[in-house]
Amino acid sequence: MDAIKKLRFKTSAGMMECKEALKESGGNVDKAVEILRKKGIVKAAKKAHRIAGQGLVESYIHMGNRIGVLVEVNCETDFVARNHDFKVFVKEVAMQVAAANPLYVARESIPADSVKKEKEIFSSQITGKPDNVAEKIVEGKLEKYFSEVCLLEQPFIKDPNIKIKDLITQLIAKIGENVVVKRFVRYELGEEF
Amino acid sequence: MDAIKKLRFKTSAGMMECKEALKESGGNVDKAVEILRKKGIVKAAKKAHRIAGQGLVESYIHMGNRIGVLVEVNCETDFVARNHDFKVFVKEVAMQVAAANPLYVARESIPADSVKKEKEIFSSQITGKPDNVAEKIVEGKLEKYFSEVCLLEQPFIKDPNIKIKDLITQLIAKIGENVVVKRFVRYELGEEF
Repeated sequence: MDAIKKLRFKTSAGMMECKEALKESGGNVDKAVEILRKKGIVKAAKKAHRIAGQGLVESYIHMGNRIGVLVEVNCETDFVARNHDFKVFVKEVAMQVAAANPLYVARESIPADSVKKEKEIFSSQITGKPDNVAEKIVEGKLEKYFSEVCLLEQPFIKDPNIKIKDLITQLIAKIGENVVVKRFVRYELGEEF
Repeated sequence: MDAIKKLRFKTSAGMMECKEALKESGGNVDKAVEILRKKGIVKAAKKAHRIAGQGLVESYIHMGNRIGVLVEVNCETDFVARNHDFKVFVKEVAMQVAAANPLYVARESIPADSVKKEKEIFSSQITGKPDNVAEKIVEGKLEKYFSEVCLLEQPFIKDPNIKIKDLITQLIAKIGENVVVKRFVRYELGEEF
């Protein structure tokens, strides 16, 4: 039933057509979309999206248009999205990304491979220490790495005594609603990628 | 020599150290960076980038912060980057992306797999036509697809008689310098990705 709902949402095709396509695709929604398209029932799949929450998309342009940032911050209601404190927070996040150039939102967003590689590199920098000491040092270096590349763990540029995640905690306490930095992107003029 | 230059740029390490690391890595620059890091010679690899050209990074926020766009457009000189016509063009590109939601800059940017899949779907929608006719129909459908998903091939929202690439041609003729839309990104509030 869930697959039918998804397929109908994606294609706006009829209930029976969706059922049949899903039967044919073995329950795979993406394949079912293709089947419907091949049959000419669906013109083109809609870009799949639904509103997961409220919030704001905000930008920040820096250094005479040499650096640009786009961020999305979610909250739970449209009411909070129009709240002054929330708006200020979103703007500050965009400025933070421009100035401090994080690569990920949270440490959970870093690919496991990258963390492993960093760990290896840190390990091989240590020589002549007992294992338990070496482990502690590597842990410390990893924490430092996280505080450099993860937005939520970075010191807030306007007040380095707190981290961005502390700023969020304060905001949540103030407005009484959950706040999530969903994603960001930062362009620097001429950088290769 | 080229690899040494790259490695030095990335790490700011000494010439001899770079030479040795590259020898050890068999000429692989990324591996050489790791080797230098493991030896403790380099603290952390700089995010590799160099200025490939001049231009502007510009944003456009739409629909009360529900849609946001970030674009980078390159030109050859700083002089043109400050040119009024160039600035207007960059703003118009950002608005175009917000309104017309392209997925790629050019048809060359579409992954070969996606083009193949679209072709297959178009083919299977045609029945009872001679091969050469079917081929022509598929070609036509592909062209239509490109004009929907590629920024450069989209009709300009402010004047649907011309495409974005025509707008670029006009601009190049006017300012006498090459202009390249390098990249863009579009956030819509709450969309899943």
